Amino acid sequence: MKFLETPSITAPKGFKAQGISAGLKKSRKKDMAVIISDTPAAAGAVFTLNKMAAAPVEVCRKNLLSKTARAIIINSGSANACTGSQGLEDAFKTTEIAAKEIGCDKKQIFVSSTGVIGTYLDMEKMEAGIKEVISAASADGGLNAARAIMTTDTVEKQSAVSITLDGNETIIAGIAKGSGMIAPNMATMLCYVTTDANITKNMLQKAVKHSADRSFNLAIVDGDTSTNDTLIVLANGAAGNKAIKSEKEKNYKIFLEALDTVCIQLAKMMVKDGEGATKFIEIFVQGAQTFEEAKTAAQAVAKSPLVKTAFFGQDANWGRIVCALGYSGVNLKPERLNVWIENVHIFKNGTGLKADETVLAEKMKQPEITLTIDLGRGEATAKVWTCDFSYNYVKINGDYRS
Amino acid sequence: MKFLETPSITAPKGFKAQGISAGLKKSRKKDMAVIISDTPAAAGAVFTLNKMAAAPVEVCRKNLLSKTARAIIINSGSANACTGSQGLEDAFKTTEIAAKEIGCDKKQIFVSSTGVIGTYLDMEKMEAGIKEVISAASADGGLNAARAIMTTDTVEKQSAVSITLDGNETIIAGIAKGSGMIAPNMATMLCYVTTDANITKNMLQKAVKHSADRSFNLAIVDGDTSTNDTLIVLANGAAGNKAIKSEKEKNYKIFLEALDTVCIQLAKMMVKDGEGATKFIEIFVQGAQTFEEAKTAAQAVAKSPLVKTAFFGQDANWGRIVCALGYSGVNLKPERLNVWIENVHIFKNGTGLKADETVLAEKMKQPEITLTIDLGRGEATAKVWTCDFSYNYVKINGDYRS
Repeated sequence: MKFLETPSITAPKGFKAQGISAGLKKSRKKDMAVIISDTPAAAGAVFTLNKMAAAPVEVCRKNLLSKTARAIIINSGSANACTGSQGLEDAFKTTEIAAKEIGCDKKQIFVSSTGVIGTYLDMEKMEAGIKEVISAASADGGLNAARAIMTTDTVEKQSAVSITLDGNETIIAGIAKGSGMIAPNMATMLCYVTTDANITKNMLQKAVKHSADRSFNLAIVDGDTSTNDTLIVLANGAAGNKAIKSEKEKNYKIFLEALDTVCIQLAKMMVKDGEGATKFIEIFVQGAQTFEEAKTAAQAVAKSPLVKTAFFGQDANWGRIVCALGYSGVNLKPERLNVWIENVHIFKNGTGLKADETVLAEKMKQPEITLTIDLGRGEATAKVWTCDFSYNYVKINGDYRS
Repeated sequence: MKFLETPSITAPKGFKAQGISAGLKKSRKKDMAVIISDTPAAAGAVFTLNKMAAAPVEVCRKNLLSKTARAIIINSGSANACTGSQGLEDAFKTTEIAAKEIGCDKKQIFVSSTGVIGTYLDMEKMEAGIKEVISAASADGGLNAARAIMTTDTVEKQSAVSITLDGNETIIAGIAKGSGMIAPNMATMLCYVTTDANITKNMLQKAVKHSADRSFNLAIVDGDTSTNDTLIVLANGAAGNKAIKSEKEKNYKIFLEALDTVCIQLAKMMVKDGEGATKFIEIFVQGAQTFEEAKTAAQAVAKSPLVKTAFFGQDANWGRIVCALGYSGVNLKPERLNVWIENVHIFKNGTGLKADETVLAEKMKQPEITLTIDLGRGEATAKVWTCDFSYNYVKINGDYRS
C-alpha cells in the first residue's frame, strides 16, 4: 500500500467529480459537489445514529437498498434537517434531477446536505446547480468537490492510497469535511470514498462499517453527534480484480487495510481542523479488559472540557485527566493507573510524579501530543483522537448559526 | 417556610463557624473554614461517585459511620486528591488536630479539601490554621466560612430558611462553592448545611440523598464530575422539636421541603456562578415517559458545547437543541417534539417555526432563560440547570491549574 502524492476522489479509474457555487451560501463560496461513477457501482454506507436524522440521510438509507449506485450529490449551506415532509420531498427531488442529468435511475443517487439546520433547500438554485455541476464533472474536479463540501473547515481533506489486487493497481480515495459536532457514532462529518476495486455490495458494507468504527467513530471534537453524518463508499470494479466475495480472501484484507487507512487519515484531518483547534491529541489507552472499556476511558478524557482547555493552555494537568477517567464509568483501581504525556511518566500507581517541568512544557507546546493511559486491568487497547478547546471554538460557535 | 434575610450557616441554634487565611493559597485569600455544632449532631452526607475520590472523601465516608458529628474542617487551595497514602494520612491527621482543639473524638470530624489536584497539604500551615480557625469560631463567622471555601467562585453562596416544627422555629442553612467540574453525580461542589432540627441519623441520611438528587445532581456547568464533591448536613436538635423518626411524619415532609429548597437555591447559585457563565438556563423537559428519561434528555442539551456556545452568542439555535435531543439516547419521535424558548414556540412537531426574531432576540438577551421541551411521549418531567460556555470559561480553565 502506498499513499498517492496527489490524492483525489477521481484517482480511481472511472470516476468524475466537480464542485461549484450554486448560490446556496451567502459567501458565494463553493457549495455543491458531485461524484459520479461512469458505471454502476456497489455502495456501502453508514449514517448518523441521531434520532433527528436529516431528510437526505433518510433518502440515502432508502437508496442504499438499490443494487448499484451511480452518483452522490452534496450541498453545503443548508443541512435540510428538521424540515419535515417538505425536506424529504426536496431530497427526493434532488435525486430525480440528478438522475435525469446523468441518465440513470433516481434510486442510484445518494444525496447529502450540510450547514444550517432547519432551513429549506432553495430548489431553484439546487436544480440549476445540479445541472451545472454534473455537466462540468471531470477527472480533474476532485479538489473542487473536496472544497465544495466544506462549512467551517479551514482546509479541504483528501486522502488516497494504492494497492495491488490480482496484479491490478487499485485505488481507494476519499474526501471529508468536519469540523464541529464531531463525536463518535458519526459527527457532522461527511465522507465520500471512491474505489475501482471489484467487491460485492455485501462485503463492501461490511468493510465500511469496520472502517467507520476504527476511524470516524474514534474522533471527537466537541462530543455532539450531528443530524447529517454520512460515509458513503462507491466501488465500481474498474480496476479489474476478481470480485471480493468473502472476508477470508486475502484481497479483502488488503482492501480493508487500505480503506481503514484512508478513513483514519481523513478522521485525523477532521480532528486537526476541529473548530478552533490548536492541538491534535491522540489518546492511547492500554491495559483495559476490553476494547469497549479502553474506548470508554479514552472518550471520557477526550470529551472533558476541563482536559481540552488545559491542553489549550499547554498545562500538563494530569489531575483533570485522571478525574475524567474516574467518572468514565470504568471500574478503575487508582493504584494501578499510569499516565504518560508523550514519553514523560506523569502519574504512577495512583499518585502524580514530579516530572521535569522544562521537558514537560516543551512537550505541551507541540502541535501534536500523544497521551498514554494504562488502566492496569487487562490487555485491550483503543486510540481516540481529539483536539483542544480554544477561544476560537467559542467564537466560531457563538457566531455561526449551524 | 420563609427565607432568612441574612442567611448564615450559623443561623440555626448551637452552631459556630469561621473562615481565615492559613496561607495555603498563594493569593493569601481565605482558605480555611470550620463549622462546629456545640453539641453532638446527627450527620447525613453524599459524596462524589468518581473512582478517583480524594483522601478527605474517604475519611468522611468512614466517619459518617459514627453516631454523631461535631465539626467540619474545610480547606481550599489544595484538593488533596490523587495523593495516595500520604494524602490519606494527612486527612486523618487533620481530624486529629481538630478533635483535640474542639475536645471531641476524631471520628466526629469531617474534612473537605478543594483546589489543585495532586499536591500534598502543607500540614504545618494546616495545623496552625486549624487551631486559629477553631479558636476564632463564633456565631458571626458564617460569611467568612462561606468565603473561605471558594476557589474560582466569584461570590459566596449562602441560603437559609425557617420552618416551624412542633411550634418551635427551626432553621436550615447552607453554604456552597462551585464552580467548575459541575455535573450530575456531584461536581467540584462542596456544600455544608446546618440545622437545629431534631431528626434521627437514618432519616437525615434519607433526606440528604433526596435533596441532592433534586438539586446538585441536576446542575451542570461543564459535565465534569470531580474527585472531591461533598454535601454534609449536621442536625443538632437544638430547636427542640420531637425527633423526626419516620418518612410518614408531617414534620419530615416539612423538613424535607425546606432542605430541598436550601439545596436547590445553592445549586442554582452555583450554576449562575459557573466559570465564565454569562447566562443561567433552566431546561424543563415535559412529556417524558419517566423522570429518568426527562433528565437524560435535559442533560444532553445542558452538556452540549454547541448549545452552550449558542446561548453565549444569544442565538436561539433550536437546531442544536433538537440535535442534542436526537443523540441523547431517548427514543424520540421528531413529529411529536416541541420546543419553546421562554414563551416563544420555536419548534413544532418536527419542524422549526418562524418566530418573531425581534421578540426572540430580546428573550435571548435575558440573563436567565427557560427552555421548555415537550417530548410528547408521556407525563413525566424534569428540570436541569446549566449555563453558557464563554471565552472566559476557556480563559479560566486554560490558565488555572485545578
